[in-house]
Amino acid sequence: MASRRIVAIGGSDAGISAALRVRELDPDSEVTVVVADAYPNFSICGIPYYVSGEVGHWSDLAHRTLAELKATGMQVRTDTLATGIDVPGRRLAVRDADGRTEQLPYDALIVGTGAVSSRPPIAGLAGPDALGPVDGVHLLHSMGDTFAVMQSLAARRPKTAVVVGAGYIGLEMAEALTTRGLKVTQIEALPEVLPTVDPELGALVHAELTAHGVEVLTGTTVSQIARAASGHVLDVRATGPDGTTFTRGTDLVLVVVGVTPDTALAAAAGAELGVQGAIEVDEYMRTSLPDVYAAGDCVVTHHRLLGKTWLPLGTTAHKQGRIAGENALGGHRWFAGSLGTQVVKVFDLVAARTGLRDHEAAAAGRGWTPATTASRPDDHKAYYPGAAPISIRVTGDTSSGLLLGAQLVGRRGAEISKRVDTYATALFHGMPVDGISELDLSYTPPLGSPWDAVQVAAQAWMSEHHLDVQRRMLQPIDEGHKLSKN
Amino acid sequence: MASRRIVAIGGSDAGISAALRVRELDPDSEVTVVVADAYPNFSICGIPYYVSGEVGHWSDLAHRTLAELKATGMQVRTDTLATGIDVPGRRLAVRDADGRTEQLPYDALIVGTGAVSSRPPIAGLAGPDALGPVDGVHLLHSMGDTFAVMQSLAARRPKTAVVVGAGYIGLEMAEALTTRGLKVTQIEALPEVLPTVDPELGALVHAELTAHGVEVLTGTTVSQIARAASGHVLDVRATGPDGTTFTRGTDLVLVVVGVTPDTALAAAAGAELGVQGAIEVDEYMRTSLPDVYAAGDCVVTHHRLLGKTWLPLGTTAHKQGRIAGENALGGHRWFAGSLGTQVVKVFDLVAARTGLRDHEAAAAGRGWTPATTASRPDDHKAYYPGAAPISIRVTGDTSSGLLLGAQLVGRRGAEISKRVDTYATALFHGMPVDGISELDLSYTPPLGSPWDAVQVAAQAWMSEHHLDVQRRMLQPIDEGHKLSKN
Repeated sequence: MASRRIVAIGGSDAGISAALRVRELDPDSEVTVVVADAYPNFSICGIPYYVSGEVGHWSDLAHRTLAELKATGMQVRTDTLATGIDVPGRRLAVRDADGRTEQLPYDALIVGTGAVSSRPPIAGLAGPDALGPVDGVHLLHSMGDTFAVMQSLAARRPKTAVVVGAGYIGLEMAEALTTRGLKVTQIEALPEVLPTVDPELGALVHAELTAHGVEVLTGTTVSQIARAASGHVLDVRATGPDGTTFTRGTDLVLVVVGVTPDTALAAAAGAELGVQGAIEVDEYMRTSLPDVYAAGDCVVTHHRLLGKTWLPLGTTAHKQGRIAGENALGGHRWFAGSLGTQVVKVFDLVAARTGLRDHEAAAAGRGWTPATTASRPDDHKAYYPGAAPISIRVTGDTSSGLLLGAQLVGRRGAEISKRVDTYATALFHGMPVDGISELDLSYTPPLGSPWDAVQVAAQAWMSEHHLDVQRRMLQPIDEGHKLSKN
Repeated sequence: MASRRIVAIGGSDAGISAALRVRELDPDSEVTVVVADAYPNFSICGIPYYVSGEVGHWSDLAHRTLAELKATGMQVRTDTLATGIDVPGRRLAVRDADGRTEQLPYDALIVGTGAVSSRPPIAGLAGPDALGPVDGVHLLHSMGDTFAVMQSLAARRPKTAVVVGAGYIGLEMAEALTTRGLKVTQIEALPEVLPTVDPELGALVHAELTAHGVEVLTGTTVSQIARAASGHVLDVRATGPDGTTFTRGTDLVLVVVGVTPDTALAAAAGAELGVQGAIEVDEYMRTSLPDVYAAGDCVVTHHRLLGKTWLPLGTTAHKQGRIAGENALGGHRWFAGSLGTQVVKVFDLVAARTGLRDHEAAAAGRGWTPATTASRPDDHKAYYPGAAPISIRVTGDTSSGLLLGAQLVGRRGAEISKRVDTYATALFHGMPVDGISELDLSYTPPLGSPWDAVQVAAQAWMSEHHLDVQRRMLQPIDEGHKLSKN
């Protein structure tokens, strides 16, 4: 049998997961991973902890070293750009750092080009005079970006920083820079930080930032970043929620307002694009091009509750890459779909979500009548030292009783991230909210309650939305109906 | 409509849960809970933390105070013994502390008599001269037992203690007494402590005990407890794994070797008994007696993987009691079944399990060919400070690929108890081991990995038992079979 040649583009989660899976399943395969920079298999999610100083050396951020990758039998071509896909000829054109070009033949190609930082419409970020790392103005998505930030921190010794954006990376970077001793101002255009959770929970994260000395400006839109005339190095011009425009001087600016799928290569080859311009793929991770698979941040996301959407997450990229690798070998693995499960630590607080919030469920077009119930059960029995409430918001469909989503915020140590996993596993199976109480979850007083917090929150939802229905079901007993065993 | 009269026997988890559910669903109901002692709705699982001093006052152990219970509209008769059930007359005979008897009429009765401490065949524990609390020899299951232990600790000021038994309560009490400054010897008849998990994991708990100064004697059977002739207050006679019999002097002995269902009342009324002598009930928590329900430690347990067994757990008692209460009102709630999910904290270690171990699955008579795979994934990304391995043992059926169980041991803080809940939720839905990798679990470097530890362990099982099957599935590709989108 001829060995199968697989080429993967991209050294991040999707590309490497695909290549690892191919090598795991078929030791006879020939696998080449084409990596644009010198940092294959790095944990992008770990960047804030390197910037903060908690991770000692940047090389620690590698999930696996280059040597470990090569030891699996894959080839890794670093500093190599994929420049074109010859679909009929099944060849990938690449160019290395020295400008040498080559055509890599493949039996199956896996595109894992990922995403690039979004560049918001802020004056000073575009055009010929655009500010950049040499001015202390940074985007942050790659290891290259990271080194530039570290260079700025070392060379400019900033005392203050403005972080534009208060999503996951923005919050983690606000913490990281605060940990390094900078006085941080965080600016978010939306009314509350962490807009991926309900504002009632975002407000808890907001308070945590403030408690740790971060100045948080919400409902505030940055219009311009400029070199300061005097004093501070940079001036950030912004408009607050009351419409007042102001200028804030600072030493460093970080713009982290999300990412955009990097689809140029696939699109040039004729691949169909889908939601938000991401590469269209089916659940087998097949693109519209024969023998071309794609996975990770560059592709549309099959969501178990929403259908097709775009929801770039590292966990999803790992799953999709693994599936693409298996199917590139001729497998028939189906991506079971995302639930958008996410968690972030902000100082001593942890915020997590899975599934849908009210407005997302209402917009899903599935006929749901969503409603959300808030509760604050303790993480463990109150009599045992250290108990702390978890703010939980459970979303369900009031007509069917179906669980649609859950959001949790609580202290670090309250096992928030694994509690959201229980909801995620329940959602995966399409459980009703009421079914959560049937789950046989673990209990010991230092770590939980006989009804775990996730069950108490589900019961609160039932109590708010369904109790009357249950009571109506009980009426027959007064009309002579009795249960009897025989 | 006449209001419905419900009587519940037992002030622990099952009886109180039933009464609470009745009051929640039907404010017109009349509910009376008959409680043998003065401590309704106490958290028996919290006793070790009161003994250790971590819980300041015994009254803190109450899930709810008597006043809170009464505020729900239920009547609570403390210090009242249920002495007989008149099934045809639907009346419960009770006797209060002053010897007054009464007949309580009911429309439905819920038996939640719980369990009593097992008394092992140790000389000195039975007969007219049996040693007891006044001698510093204790069983431990009720609040009364607890006060006796505290009385011994205060009055005798013991420096040493022998704990007979190394199950959940035995381990927690070894920790509690060590925390109080006693030198503890723990004796277990089986070859390893915490025999509810595989010995490979029990050995980790054993080492944790030893590291905290507990002397652990496994494979050691206690034959006699006697008043010491001199020196120490008590002599414990035991035989070690090599057959050598020895005597250990000590100031205090705690015998905690499990419990037995308390079924005398129901059995006297003619209720059918089942597995291990527990009261037979169906999934609606109905006994064989008309209008008599039962729940909690006194009844057989419907197990999702084993069918009928007996597996007394507080979480199960809460669920069953709630169902019994609902059905006593005419509801049709079905107990979805136990998975035996359990967790215990022993000093800084947490051990948890759900579902079945190899030998349990093999004995289940379901045609499974179980196998267990051990792995040690980190609780979170190694580059983030504080990462620690979790010892995970995943059990699955090698013929069908079905997940059968999981056991985890790791450091406190490694979110062991909620990670076992992910397995429990997967088991609840009959997932294959391979399906665990499809779950959309949360990830942030300080709290997890892109493939969470529970997924890494499942993949290790797949790799050990199923990889070859997968590879065989891939063969067609070399015979010309190709995936194509159109």
